[in-house]
Amino acid sequence: MGLPDEHIYPHATGHAAKTVAKHQEPQELIFYAGWFCPYVQRSWITLEEKGIPYQYKEVNPYKKEKHFLDINPKGLVPAIEYKGKAMYESLILCEFFEDAYPQHAPHVLPADPFDRAYVRLWTGHVDKQVVPAFMRTILAQEADKQQASLEEFYKALRTLCEKVKGPYFFGEEFTLVDVALAPWVVRDYILKENRGYDRDAVGNGWKQYAEKLETRASVLQTQSDKEHYAEIYARYLRNEAQSEAAKAIRAGRPF
Amino acid sequence: MGLPDEHIYPHATGHAAKTVAKHQEPQELIFYAGWFCPYVQRSWITLEEKGIPYQYKEVNPYKKEKHFLDINPKGLVPAIEYKGKAMYESLILCEFFEDAYPQHAPHVLPADPFDRAYVRLWTGHVDKQVVPAFMRTILAQEADKQQASLEEFYKALRTLCEKVKGPYFFGEEFTLVDVALAPWVVRDYILKENRGYDRDAVGNGWKQYAEKLETRASVLQTQSDKEHYAEIYARYLRNEAQSEAAKAIRAGRPF
Repeated sequence: MGLPDEHIYPHATGHAAKTVAKHQEPQELIFYAGWFCPYVQRSWITLEEKGIPYQYKEVNPYKKEKHFLDINPKGLVPAIEYKGKAMYESLILCEFFEDAYPQHAPHVLPADPFDRAYVRLWTGHVDKQVVPAFMRTILAQEADKQQASLEEFYKALRTLCEKVKGPYFFGEEFTLVDVALAPWVVRDYILKENRGYDRDAVGNGWKQYAEKLETRASVLQTQSDKEHYAEIYARYLRNEAQSEAAKAIRAGRPF
Repeated sequence: MGLPDEHIYPHATGHAAKTVAKHQEPQELIFYAGWFCPYVQRSWITLEEKGIPYQYKEVNPYKKEKHFLDINPKGLVPAIEYKGKAMYESLILCEFFEDAYPQHAPHVLPADPFDRAYVRLWTGHVDKQVVPAFMRTILAQEADKQQASLEEFYKALRTLCEKVKGPYFFGEEFTLVDVALAPWVVRDYILKENRGYDRDAVGNGWKQYAEKLETRASVLQTQSDKEHYAEIYARYLRNEAQSEAAKAIRAGRPF
């Protein structure tokens, strides 16, 4: 019997399907993606923001195909093939797109060195505090653990919200902090429907900021239909998911 | 009674003391450091590599002083004050030094965008796999957990060693991967003396690479006398340390 994650819906739907359809021609940059994966969406949002030419290839990371494993032995998505070489890790890819396509504006990192560091610092907060708390809340099975994780999630969001300049984290510019966070904002209805999460309970302007993120064109363009995410997250909610992130959370390990 | 980490030796010794003495004049960049902290050493190595003018200020992060807390409410080291603004997080500071002082060679990130991504990817491996396994091995109290963590540490090192081009990770260039790793190499005698760690047991050229790192001038220049590190690590070995990293490891949280 295969892993439970192997039988996921095979391709993007909704707005994301239209974006996929526009990116089928061969390009120097091949983007290996899983339509459902929030880490993939980070890199995908950045590609769409910057208008970088790329070829989209759907990969089921739980059914690793030979060519993909040849270029990327870990078999993780998001990954890219660029001039025959492979690279992966969502935020490293976003920085790569900045470095490799400097002529493609807008930029998700500010030009000023201190501002870049500031954006990287709060991107780290999203990556190390907000996202793991989201994941722990979903994976938690007992009511008390769900509640404790949800409180940690609220706390991590409130800390972030204190720094939001508005409308985006860093002001008018849409930066890597927003990119890193948006995929979990568009999926937070999973927490609402299953773990009692409420955007209003965060306070500190979270609702306004979250709405700004989820209606950004690049976020919408990389979004599939809700019903198919629900299938994926049903496995997380039962703590059966076999993704690298789910395994790391269970083991209490960084990912 | 204060936290056990409050009563640490108050200043750098040995080679590091000489480096501190050379960096007492006021500068645009103030480097807030704890002589004993491996995360501090990452940023310090980068400053020394690049010959950036900085003023060194010793901070005991367990006894947070008012001016330091005013500029940096989290009170963590390493931190900097740059034109009156505070920034922290060891690797973010290293990248900031690259961005803010582009004329200061050598560079710890390669110029080529793909190479930069590659170096960031393996810096992430050091940060998320190697260092936490080192910390878990030190903090583990039961023999079976010590052995299991030591095996994870060996495994993380072997994975890294497979990619070492020699003499440094990325070849002749000393890059962020080496910077991120070196502070734990110079402290690995703690594992040798207390947890049965043996460089030879890693294989894959680890011994040669480790010796190259620990004899790099910038690493030596930021190194204090061994006896004072031993006092610090005695608290870790008894699982009494109150550093942010120690607390995160215990809670199974990213840090």
